[in-house]
Amino acid sequence: MQFSDLIDTKKQGKALSEAQIHFWIEGYVKGWIPDYQVSALCMAIYFQGMNKQEIAWLCEAMLYSGEVMDLTEIAGKKADKHSTGGVGDKTSLALAPMVAACGGKIAKMSGRGLGHTGGTLDKAEAISGFQVSLGKERFIQQVNAIGLALIGQSKHFVPADQLLYALRDVSGTVDSLPLIATSIMSKKLAAGADTILLDVKYGSGAFMHTPKQAKELAMVMIELGKHFGKDTRAMITDMNQPLGNAIGNALEVKEAIATLQGHGPKDFVELCLCAGSIMLVQSELAKDRTQARAMLQDSITSGKALAKLKALCEWQGGDVKQIADPSLLPQAEYVIPILAKQEGYVSMLHALRLGQLAMRLGAGRNTKEDRIDSAVGIVLHKKAGSQVHIGESLAYVHTNRPLEDAWLHDFYEAYEFRKEKPTISPLIYEIIE
Amino acid sequence: MQFSDLIDTKKQGKALSEAQIHFWIEGYVKGWIPDYQVSALCMAIYFQGMNKQEIAWLCEAMLYSGEVMDLTEIAGKKADKHSTGGVGDKTSLALAPMVAACGGKIAKMSGRGLGHTGGTLDKAEAISGFQVSLGKERFIQQVNAIGLALIGQSKHFVPADQLLYALRDVSGTVDSLPLIATSIMSKKLAAGADTILLDVKYGSGAFMHTPKQAKELAMVMIELGKHFGKDTRAMITDMNQPLGNAIGNALEVKEAIATLQGHGPKDFVELCLCAGSIMLVQSELAKDRTQARAMLQDSITSGKALAKLKALCEWQGGDVKQIADPSLLPQAEYVIPILAKQEGYVSMLHALRLGQLAMRLGAGRNTKEDRIDSAVGIVLHKKAGSQVHIGESLAYVHTNRPLEDAWLHDFYEAYEFRKEKPTISPLIYEIIE
Repeated sequence: MQFSDLIDTKKQGKALSEAQIHFWIEGYVKGWIPDYQVSALCMAIYFQGMNKQEIAWLCEAMLYSGEVMDLTEIAGKKADKHSTGGVGDKTSLALAPMVAACGGKIAKMSGRGLGHTGGTLDKAEAISGFQVSLGKERFIQQVNAIGLALIGQSKHFVPADQLLYALRDVSGTVDSLPLIATSIMSKKLAAGADTILLDVKYGSGAFMHTPKQAKELAMVMIELGKHFGKDTRAMITDMNQPLGNAIGNALEVKEAIATLQGHGPKDFVELCLCAGSIMLVQSELAKDRTQARAMLQDSITSGKALAKLKALCEWQGGDVKQIADPSLLPQAEYVIPILAKQEGYVSMLHALRLGQLAMRLGAGRNTKEDRIDSAVGIVLHKKAGSQVHIGESLAYVHTNRPLEDAWLHDFYEAYEFRKEKPTISPLIYEIIE
Repeated sequence: MQFSDLIDTKKQGKALSEAQIHFWIEGYVKGWIPDYQVSALCMAIYFQGMNKQEIAWLCEAMLYSGEVMDLTEIAGKKADKHSTGGVGDKTSLALAPMVAACGGKIAKMSGRGLGHTGGTLDKAEAISGFQVSLGKERFIQQVNAIGLALIGQSKHFVPADQLLYALRDVSGTVDSLPLIATSIMSKKLAAGADTILLDVKYGSGAFMHTPKQAKELAMVMIELGKHFGKDTRAMITDMNQPLGNAIGNALEVKEAIATLQGHGPKDFVELCLCAGSIMLVQSELAKDRTQARAMLQDSITSGKALAKLKALCEWQGGDVKQIADPSLLPQAEYVIPILAKQEGYVSMLHALRLGQLAMRLGAGRNTKEDRIDSAVGIVLHKKAGSQVHIGESLAYVHTNRPLEDAWLHDFYEAYEFRKEKPTISPLIYEIIE
């Protein structure tokens, strides 16, 4: 088999065979097939797409390209959740303790952030001492003991995706539906949970720009999950503006703690309750979402969810005092209010731009080698729909260096105002069960 | 500037800017931009195309990526001709002596063959001792003395094309009109002639499958030539079946010699007369193609054209005795007739398959490192339109090893027969002046 034949087949809009797809993934992981051929194929896939059968074969070939987690030693249904990524998305940090407090089992494997979206691991590591490298036995023991654990992906975990993602990132082929769907689902399937909840985001801060595109991606991933025998459901959610108020690692940990203390931002609390209720139903711990929601609300008011976060922290070497007193988390040198220069209603708050602004403060990575500054970021005071008067603070910037004029200019550009109160699209667009 | 922005721009079907195109070519030649990004861009260009302005900028950037030939020391108009390549295309070996015998100046730079189409240099080197590495001064001196010289391309000649062509060859991006046009024209323009004649072939043995596609490519190249101030014209010619009868290096040299002796195959003679007449008009050595044609005919009957081939051979170290007595050229050990197993008229004779069959005998290269066997090849006795009776010879195979059954099977597959005399499309479909 010649790899150039695969490229030609896809260029002409024809389907690849199972043998061709396995040849591609095996050859690429083993280093027989060079990057310049795979990037050309990915670009041909961007233009010509893949049919359902090809997508299933690709997902399977990727899934088995490395180690597959075996979680059978964990009692009960293991629930997993994946977000397609967004700005201010600290959901796992609050949601996992809430679900675990209700009896769910969360054996979570997470990635690091690259570009304007942060990674859960980076956020957890804002807590002093928090370790994300656990041996497999220790990982399973912890989930059995406290209901949740959080680890990073090893080099041997879906290596096909690690290689393909790095290549797609630099060859303009990230935004291809079959490649996004197989990248996400190969990892979720290899992570070994029984149920998968997908939070597929759309809007200016997401890969998918419209609810329609997000739903299309969700349907392909649900089909993949079912093909491999997993209970897979999805939420289509808005990522035109950041989720919650905090953007930046320690700031997002603080917001997750506040949420578990019962005073989280309304949109973020709603997302956690909605996602958690689907997960509890998937785990057969609640008969319907209404019952599940009440259980999750109770996990907050009773303090059980916060206790789970403390337990997670304790088991993984983190400084539990920082959970009890978040002011002990890394603090930036300067906290600078940004004052409104015009009045009206915020009609738009560009998530992507705010994510990039936080990255420029040091909250994210441009390259894999970059170090993150946990303390820095942005806390929004005014979000889409808010009324603003001149001189009110739009946000507080937490920074370890003075703000440059260009940064400030770009910050103001992230806000759009108008005179009349705008209609803000709902956070949760659709639930696909 | 980030190269990934160029990929995104082209993916979205937008035009690249002049600065972006120069950044690409300079960065690629200097090694800043990796193959896997360029192959992704080439695939995006395959799908989205390029507008006239982008094509002109790309051609210019490639053209000046290395040394540009300065032929001003050669008196008179320098004529160049390019064929998009085909099976049995030994045109330069007969045409250049004919045009030079009529006063034309041919300072020809040629390439080597790869795949099923042979290269002029490989054919010339079938003559013992023939040297294609001449210093620039020697090259110019020779053209001034005898009207023609033939050299190979150095590593410093249009390096952007050398790199891009090698990458396109292995990344499924050869058959993109803007990339084909700029590859050909950057080299023709850098070769420094005053006039350019393009022989754009279509059919089963060519890149372009239909006359329409060939004409589209020709029009883009003519426009490029004119943009850079060169008299550029084109012929659209048929390459469904091989040109002439001989396929294989020494066999093609023999056919070129036979043509200059006045007994060449009808189709090949016609192509030489047609191309030569356009070139003599371009060089202002004839007032029209009719007069030019008479001059070229005379160059054969008078023996002047054959004398030019001998002079070329003598100046470049080749064994002139082999021109006078072609039986001294490399001879294969076996000459095996292939007998017809069915009767009727030849309705189709697949050029591509015959080219590949000759390659399997050793006449061509699969990789750049392969050595060519000059002696081997195929001489066709029956071509499209010929009537054939069972037991008549279709062709003679010149080989240094016994023929395998699979080879013979594939040879018969290259012929198609039918009962009624078929209409054969004319060799020269159109001349664009």
